[in-house]
Amino acid sequence: MKIALDAMGGDFAPQAAVDGAVLAAEALAGKAQIVLIGQEDAVRPLLEQHGAAAADLQLVPASQIIEMGEHPAKAYQQKQDSSIAVGYKMLATGEVEAFCSAGNTGAMLVGAMFSVKAVPGVMRPAIANFVPKLHGGMGIMLDVGANAECKPEMLEQFGELGSLYAQYVLGIEKPKVGLMNLGEEEGKGTAITQAAHQLLKVNPHIHFIGNIEGRDLFNDKADVIVCDGFTGNVVLKMAESVYDIIAEKNIHDPFLDKFNYEAVGGSPILGINDNAIIGHGVSTPTAICNMLLQGYQMASSGIADQIKNTFKS
Amino acid sequence: MKIALDAMGGDFAPQAAVDGAVLAAEALAGKAQIVLIGQEDAVRPLLEQHGAAAADLQLVPASQIIEMGEHPAKAYQQKQDSSIAVGYKMLATGEVEAFCSAGNTGAMLVGAMFSVKAVPGVMRPAIANFVPKLHGGMGIMLDVGANAECKPEMLEQFGELGSLYAQYVLGIEKPKVGLMNLGEEEGKGTAITQAAHQLLKVNPHIHFIGNIEGRDLFNDKADVIVCDGFTGNVVLKMAESVYDIIAEKNIHDPFLDKFNYEAVGGSPILGINDNAIIGHGVSTPTAICNMLLQGYQMASSGIADQIKNTFKS
Repeated sequence: MKIALDAMGGDFAPQAAVDGAVLAAEALAGKAQIVLIGQEDAVRPLLEQHGAAAADLQLVPASQIIEMGEHPAKAYQQKQDSSIAVGYKMLATGEVEAFCSAGNTGAMLVGAMFSVKAVPGVMRPAIANFVPKLHGGMGIMLDVGANAECKPEMLEQFGELGSLYAQYVLGIEKPKVGLMNLGEEEGKGTAITQAAHQLLKVNPHIHFIGNIEGRDLFNDKADVIVCDGFTGNVVLKMAESVYDIIAEKNIHDPFLDKFNYEAVGGSPILGINDNAIIGHGVSTPTAICNMLLQGYQMASSGIADQIKNTFKS
Repeated sequence: MKIALDAMGGDFAPQAAVDGAVLAAEALAGKAQIVLIGQEDAVRPLLEQHGAAAADLQLVPASQIIEMGEHPAKAYQQKQDSSIAVGYKMLATGEVEAFCSAGNTGAMLVGAMFSVKAVPGVMRPAIANFVPKLHGGMGIMLDVGANAECKPEMLEQFGELGSLYAQYVLGIEKPKVGLMNLGEEEGKGTAITQAAHQLLKVNPHIHFIGNIEGRDLFNDKADVIVCDGFTGNVVLKMAESVYDIIAEKNIHDPFLDKFNYEAVGGSPILGINDNAIIGHGVSTPTAICNMLLQGYQMASSGIADQIKNTFKS
């Protein structure tokens, strides 16, 4: 199995990308090969510094870079030899089974839609993020930014997508799906969350437990937290800032340390025909490594096929 | 000056209400009198336990109680001798200059609209909440739950209301107003936040600094954080849960301790003709006391008149 990494993506690329890829290659030795995609001149010397540890890594050249500030759709279409475009081409042709990048988030989304494409039946793919649970384990929250505005049917599908991920990748047997809202009662919220509630309630593929509130993010009420990308994005960035504040104050605690994005390394795009993960711009080698391990887990679990089968009907 | 408290509101009422009122009466001695509103049989004995310390408190009888789970509008209209209804009557007639309650939030909102009413020109009053800032001071965020769905014009008004509060009550000279969004760029967000951005940008009464993100809640970018009540409610409850988790872990830090709702004690309703504050259901005596002190600050600042003058034009 091959897992690809955009060697040019992220604020500290290519150094952090190469270092993280070497870490992941060690962790996945005998199970998967890491494929680095990027400018050969920049990446080769960094790989050589790692000596024998980097022997198993494959380097695929890509001459262009989509910068963080570039317009996603325009850059993706104009830079067909960028590391992101080359990565998605390899993913679409099946040369690799997952593609990870800490680069331009918008370009990663555009690439997903243009190359591997949304699963037929999925209205809009979503970006998922992980939520540490106070009593152990991880929950999954989606959407966290791909879709600022969501129709009720989209929220319903996010419940299904998240439930499948929780089941097949996180190993949660009967994932509890909760709808983020401003009150627990059925009639609470916007017209959209009210309608989504009714759809989720009768969806036979999921175990819907009703509305949850902001205070339920870290408790055991729901394994899958459904929300529009606006709300999810605000919540995610707020949680990250809380972690940064706590870390800066040198406060350490096994639970609070799980807020660190490095622990998971990236956010999967769910609802596309293949496995793609978007990493944080500031990704460290540890974060890159964990993103690649997550890519391996996704690919091994066959989650993309599970999603395709569910939405076929 | 008289500041009124619903003695029957909150999970630990009337005990916590009476104890908190006595604390506030001591703090405001010579400046304001606390008026307790509630069932005489229940409140009088508790007051007597405080002896001389409670001598300056006034008790106004109200025979009914609106329970936490009751339907707000129905309960408010049917229980005209409830502590909340009596409190609002006293506020509307000018017998007291602020009314505070840790009781049924919905009933407090309904009462505000029915009795003291929205300021002419204000489309929808909002509930505001306070956000501790990492480098000191407090910011204000609104709406946090009165309006799940907001038109762009409502968000614009929240910017004005919050700015006036920050100026006249928090003493911030030229409050920076930020619009909560999923990206900093002007074109980001939903159709509603995009339109609100354009309105806020040209509003001459405020100092708009643009979009902010979830990570900017606690930094110095904005003193006034504008958002719809859905987003604000999720953020507020999430922040409360983070504080609870940290407190349970016995982690203490001067900044993190400010997340404690007790420190401010309540959320003002802004955009009505008078001063009303809603406290947390679990309010302790300290929280009740601080809510009353906030009521005194609001009344002293003349914030309600400032809002009326601004929206008259």
